[in-house]
Amino acid sequence: MTDIIIIGGGPAGLSTAIYAKRAGLSVMVFDKGAADCQLTKATEVENYLGFPSISGLELQEKFSQHAKAHNVQIVKKAVVSVEKNDWGFKVCTKKEVFESKYLVLAMGRSHKHLGIEGEDRLSGAGVSYCATCDGFFFKNKTVCVIGGGDSALTQAIYLSGLCEKVFLVHRRDTFRASNYLVERAKSINNIEFVLNASPTKIIGDTHVLGIELATQREGNIVLTCDGVFGAIGETPNIKFEIDGLNKNESGHIITDKYCRTNINGLYAVGDIREREVYQVITAVADGALAIEGILADQSINL
Amino acid sequence: MTDIIIIGGGPAGLSTAIYAKRAGLSVMVFDKGAADCQLTKATEVENYLGFPSISGLELQEKFSQHAKAHNVQIVKKAVVSVEKNDWGFKVCTKKEVFESKYLVLAMGRSHKHLGIEGEDRLSGAGVSYCATCDGFFFKNKTVCVIGGGDSALTQAIYLSGLCEKVFLVHRRDTFRASNYLVERAKSINNIEFVLNASPTKIIGDTHVLGIELATQREGNIVLTCDGVFGAIGETPNIKFEIDGLNKNESGHIITDKYCRTNINGLYAVGDIREREVYQVITAVADGALAIEGILADQSINL
Repeated sequence: MTDIIIIGGGPAGLSTAIYAKRAGLSVMVFDKGAADCQLTKATEVENYLGFPSISGLELQEKFSQHAKAHNVQIVKKAVVSVEKNDWGFKVCTKKEVFESKYLVLAMGRSHKHLGIEGEDRLSGAGVSYCATCDGFFFKNKTVCVIGGGDSALTQAIYLSGLCEKVFLVHRRDTFRASNYLVERAKSINNIEFVLNASPTKIIGDTHVLGIELATQREGNIVLTCDGVFGAIGETPNIKFEIDGLNKNESGHIITDKYCRTNINGLYAVGDIREREVYQVITAVADGALAIEGILADQSINL
Repeated sequence: MTDIIIIGGGPAGLSTAIYAKRAGLSVMVFDKGAADCQLTKATEVENYLGFPSISGLELQEKFSQHAKAHNVQIVKKAVVSVEKNDWGFKVCTKKEVFESKYLVLAMGRSHKHLGIEGEDRLSGAGVSYCATCDGFFFKNKTVCVIGGGDSALTQAIYLSGLCEKVFLVHRRDTFRASNYLVERAKSINNIEFVLNASPTKIIGDTHVLGIELATQREGNIVLTCDGVFGAIGETPNIKFEIDGLNKNESGHIITDKYCRTNINGLYAVGDIREREVYQVITAVADGALAIEGILADQSINL
């Protein structure tokens, strides 16, 4: 039986694997490919300390090389189900069953897409889903943030400190966001609210030129802008059920400081868990926390 | 007035500076040199994801280059005092006064030294202060852990999973450490307790060959070992007073999840704060947390 099975080979999963190996624990990482890894979709990463500017794909490749250098076993198969037993976990792929004492979920999360024309084509060419990650690339430019929750308002406020102008586009005229965020955004001169408006098309061939909106009052209008930030939500990548696992409203897994879930021996690291900040560096840091937790559990569960 | 002054240019300080710059905030880092930076003393770092194996000095150099590439202003002067005002902070060097809205403490901490012959000479050549960082380099070897607190016991248990044999040397026969850690360590076959014994000398010219102990029963004895882990405590590098700042018993600064201290506008990042795990990667992650906190404070304190 393996000590630790990790599902997901993104930044959080690989960091956990390396900390495990260096603690003398046996580990297997299940990763069916980069399709679900947010990092690989980032055109440019500038805030992972040590790499002043690198593409997400290159950075993930460096992470994989690191794991390989430490002989981390990566199984390129999808996990279809997971079962908890008295002694640990059964992890099933389509054809095989693997067993481990500890299980670490590291499947990340996906941005909800706006589902409009131009979005996929211009992703990384003006379309983004993370102001902290990409805002700086729009310094002194005009951007449009789509959404009405805390994330949309926070991103608009963040961008207002960098950009010439920020449009906040929301399909209603009331907000799910906390009131203090709405009030703060309203007080900022270079944020303009565009309410009762739904995006229908992002305009541009090689980079974003503007966004078309369907509005109640004026019919279809076009806002000229250099960037579009989608902020309508995030979905954790959980494709199998785990009975009794505590999650928050948006489906993110609730953990303690050591990334422990409410299920004994089950951990969640990186973007899949509820946390303060969703950044590559914070996901990678979880590797150190989770292994510290597992080592403490081993001592307590003697 | 600068938005943020950061005291300390190690991993946590530089990461905070880069997150600040990318959020459009002005920032100054005060760093009087590498003397106090723990990272630069690490012979080999293998667990900072992206760099499979790198010296601490090289890694810190990469961090500095990253900060320079993002035009972070680094002032090579020691801060001698800090004062809180209604509008923010006054930061004084020997001859000058600087002002900022927010102040981030990032001065790190130092391992307490054993203060015995051979310790300095063999530091990084068998003498270490961090099992998580360096334990792997002693795989299948014999090591000696010095100390009687939680850290010493945790390090001994960690090393027992990697090493052929672990001596736990403690000057008393009672422990400050939590009882479950002592019981756990006692139950592990390859941990041997050497009690009522104080280290007097580390033996070896180019690498550790053993340690000499003064014991009550047998006089001076020598344990043959390949590594010595000092675990007698850590001291945060705080060389000026800040009135009313909350610290824990060991002097580490108490913060919330966003690295906020109990003083409005004052943050602490990296090893200087009380935290679960003291690793480079967790210190670097604090940069993202602290800037998220500062941006939220700006919204709330409108």
